[in-house]
Amino acid sequence: MTMNQTIGSAFNKTTYRLSGHGPRNIGMLMTTFHDMNEDTDSDMYGKGKFIEQFQEKMAEFLGKESAVFFPSGTMAQQIALRIWCDRQGLRKVAYHPLCHLEIHEEDGLKKLHGIEPVLLADRSRLITLDDVKNRGEDISCLLLELPQREIGGQLPDYAELEAISAYCHEQGIKLHLDGARLFEILPYYGKTAAEICSLFDSVYVSFYKGIGGVAGAILTGDSEFTEESKPWKRRHGGDLISLYPYIISSDYYFEQRIGKMEQYYQGARQLAEWFNRCPRTATVPEVPVSNMFHIHFAAPQAQVEQALIDLYEETGIGITSNLRAIDENSCYTEISVGDKYAELSSKQIETVFSLLIRKLSLLGKA
Amino acid sequence: MTMNQTIGSAFNKTTYRLSGHGPRNIGMLMTTFHDMNEDTDSDMYGKGKFIEQFQEKMAEFLGKESAVFFPSGTMAQQIALRIWCDRQGLRKVAYHPLCHLEIHEEDGLKKLHGIEPVLLADRSRLITLDDVKNRGEDISCLLLELPQREIGGQLPDYAELEAISAYCHEQGIKLHLDGARLFEILPYYGKTAAEICSLFDSVYVSFYKGIGGVAGAILTGDSEFTEESKPWKRRHGGDLISLYPYIISSDYYFEQRIGKMEQYYQGARQLAEWFNRCPRTATVPEVPVSNMFHIHFAAPQAQVEQALIDLYEETGIGITSNLRAIDENSCYTEISVGDKYAELSSKQIETVFSLLIRKLSLLGKA
Repeated sequence: MTMNQTIGSAFNKTTYRLSGHGPRNIGMLMTTFHDMNEDTDSDMYGKGKFIEQFQEKMAEFLGKESAVFFPSGTMAQQIALRIWCDRQGLRKVAYHPLCHLEIHEEDGLKKLHGIEPVLLADRSRLITLDDVKNRGEDISCLLLELPQREIGGQLPDYAELEAISAYCHEQGIKLHLDGARLFEILPYYGKTAAEICSLFDSVYVSFYKGIGGVAGAILTGDSEFTEESKPWKRRHGGDLISLYPYIISSDYYFEQRIGKMEQYYQGARQLAEWFNRCPRTATVPEVPVSNMFHIHFAAPQAQVEQALIDLYEETGIGITSNLRAIDENSCYTEISVGDKYAELSSKQIETVFSLLIRKLSLLGKA
Repeated sequence: MTMNQTIGSAFNKTTYRLSGHGPRNIGMLMTTFHDMNEDTDSDMYGKGKFIEQFQEKMAEFLGKESAVFFPSGTMAQQIALRIWCDRQGLRKVAYHPLCHLEIHEEDGLKKLHGIEPVLLADRSRLITLDDVKNRGEDISCLLLELPQREIGGQLPDYAELEAISAYCHEQGIKLHLDGARLFEILPYYGKTAAEICSLFDSVYVSFYKGIGGVAGAILTGDSEFTEESKPWKRRHGGDLISLYPYIISSDYYFEQRIGKMEQYYQGARQLAEWFNRCPRTATVPEVPVSNMFHIHFAAPQAQVEQALIDLYEETGIGITSNLRAIDENSCYTEISVGDKYAELSSKQIETVFSLLIRKLSLLGKA
C-alpha cells in the first residue's frame, strides 16, 4: 500500500480501465495524421476544403442547413445565445443551475455578453415543461443540456422534450441544445441525431467527449444563424489561421466511434448494475441513459480514495482518476464508458468488483 | 498566357518564392511531431509540462515574470487591454487607426469588452510622443504595434520609443506591445527581445508570422497580470483541453527560425532595393526595418496582376499571392521574407527582376 500516491497518479499507471478511451497523449493526434498527405493545404481563417467539408458533413448528420467549426464549446455556446438574444432584443436566457455556462466558464456569458441567466429547476433534477412555463420572466432563449451532465447524465422523456420544444416554438422562445454528449444519447432515445436536433433552433456538439478527439466543437442551425456566428468567432479570437489539427482529429475519431455509441451505452448499464451491488454505493441515474453516470459513495472521500488506489495497484484496473467530496461522509465520481471497457474480460470485471465489494465493506471498520 | 488564373493559384504553383516560408500545408505540423514520443501527456486546460515549460521559456526570452499561451493574438490582446482597463477603472485605450483590433477583429474589443478606442496619428504614419501627449482624452492603456504592419512594417526610432514608454509610465498609462512581429525587428534595433519588452507592461507575440508556426500566441507581463488573463482565456473559450498541437509547433519553429531573423531582414533590404529599381514601383518603407515591406505599383491592379501571373509561369518564381487596389490606378502588396528567399540563386533573382522590369515598362502600352 502506497500512502503518498494520488488517485490520479494511481489511475494513470493502470493498464485496464472501466472508463474512458485511454490516455490523452500526443499519440492521439499523431495517429490521425498517419494516412494524410503532407501536401494537403491548411484551412485558412475558416475557409478551405478541410473545414468546409467537415462542416457540411456535420450539418447533414445533425439535419441542419449549415454548421461552423469552433475550437471550443464554451465559445460556440456563448455565441449562439448572444445571436438569439440580439435577434429577440433581450439579453436573458434560461438554463439549468448546473449548466456549463453557469459553473465552468468563469461567467463569460455575463462578462463578455452581458447576458443574464434565469435558472430553471433545481440542482438535483431536470428542467420540466412546467419549469419553462413558470419561469416568471421573459427570455430570448432556453438552453437544454442532453444529457444533463452534472447530475449523472439524465434525460427527460422524449415526449417531454417534444412538448418543451413545441411550447418554445409557440412562444417565440429560441431553443438551443447543449449537445456536448448528443451522440452518446442516440441509442437510448432510439432517434437519429437529426431527429433530436429538429426540436432545436441551434445545436452544439463536442468532439472530445464520447468521440474522444483532441478538441473542437460544431455549432449548427440555419444558414442565417451560422453566418452570424462567424464574425463572433473572429471577435472571440477563435477564427484561427489553422484549425486543422482539431478538424482532422475530430473527423477521424467521429468515424471511428460514432458507430460504437450503443456499445458504450450497454457498457454503462452493465457497469452501473455492478456498482449498485456494492455496499455504500449507488449510481445516478440508477439505470444510465447514455455512456455516463455518477457513482455516489456513502463514505468519506479519503477512505474511498485509498480503497480505490489499493484496488488499482492490486488489479492494474482503473475505475476513475478523481473523486469529489459531497460532504464529510460522502463523495462521488463520474464514469464515461469508452473504448477501454471492451478490453476487459468478464473474469477481470468479476475480480475487480468482488475486490471492490470487500474493500467497501471494510470501510470505517479499521 | 492563361487568362482565367488568379494570382493566388498561379503563386501556389511556383516552386521558388521571394517571400514566405513555403506552403501552409499539414506537413508543417506533421514535421514537428516526427521526433516526439507518442506517450507524452497532453496539456490539460492550461496545465501540464508542455504548456508550462513553453510559457516559462517565452517569459524568460521576453524578460518578463510570467507568460500564458493563447490560441490567438486576437484573444490575447483584447484580454490584455481589458485587464488594464479594469485596473484603471476606465474603458478607453489608444492605438493606431490601422491597429489589428480596429480593422481585423470585427470590433471584438468594443462588442465583447465595451472598450472604446482613441485613434492616434493618421493612417499613413507612426504614432509619435506628441500624438500621445495631445491625445485629448484620458486612457487606461496605449497599444503600440512594432513594426506597424499595415504601413509596410515601419518602426519609430528607439529613442522615441523610450520617450513614449517613459511618458506613459510617468502618467500611469499602461503600455501594451502588439509584438506580432517582434522577433523580426530585433536585428534593426540591435536589441534583445527582453530589452524592448522592458519598455512595456504587457507584450503579445505571435508564432505564425516570422516564426512560421501553425498558430498560437504568448501574452506576457508580471505574474499578477498573467494570472488575471487566465479566467479571461476561459471566458473567451480559449482554455482548450489540449493546445499542444500549437505549442509543439510554436516551439519547434521558434527554435528553427529565431536565429534567422537577421538573414530575413537582410533579404528584405536586398529585395526592396531590387523593387525600387523597377518602373512604377516603390517600397514602403523605402529601406525595410524588418523582414517585411509593402510594394506600391503605380498601375491598375488587373494589369499588375496579369504581369505577375505571366512572370510566375515563365520563371516558376512567385512574388506574392495577392494584390490589393489602392485606387483605380494603383495597387500594393505585402512581402515578408522567410526561408524561401535563401533558396534562390543570384542568377534567378537577376532573371526575375529583369523580366519584371520589362513587364512593368510595357504596362498600358498595349
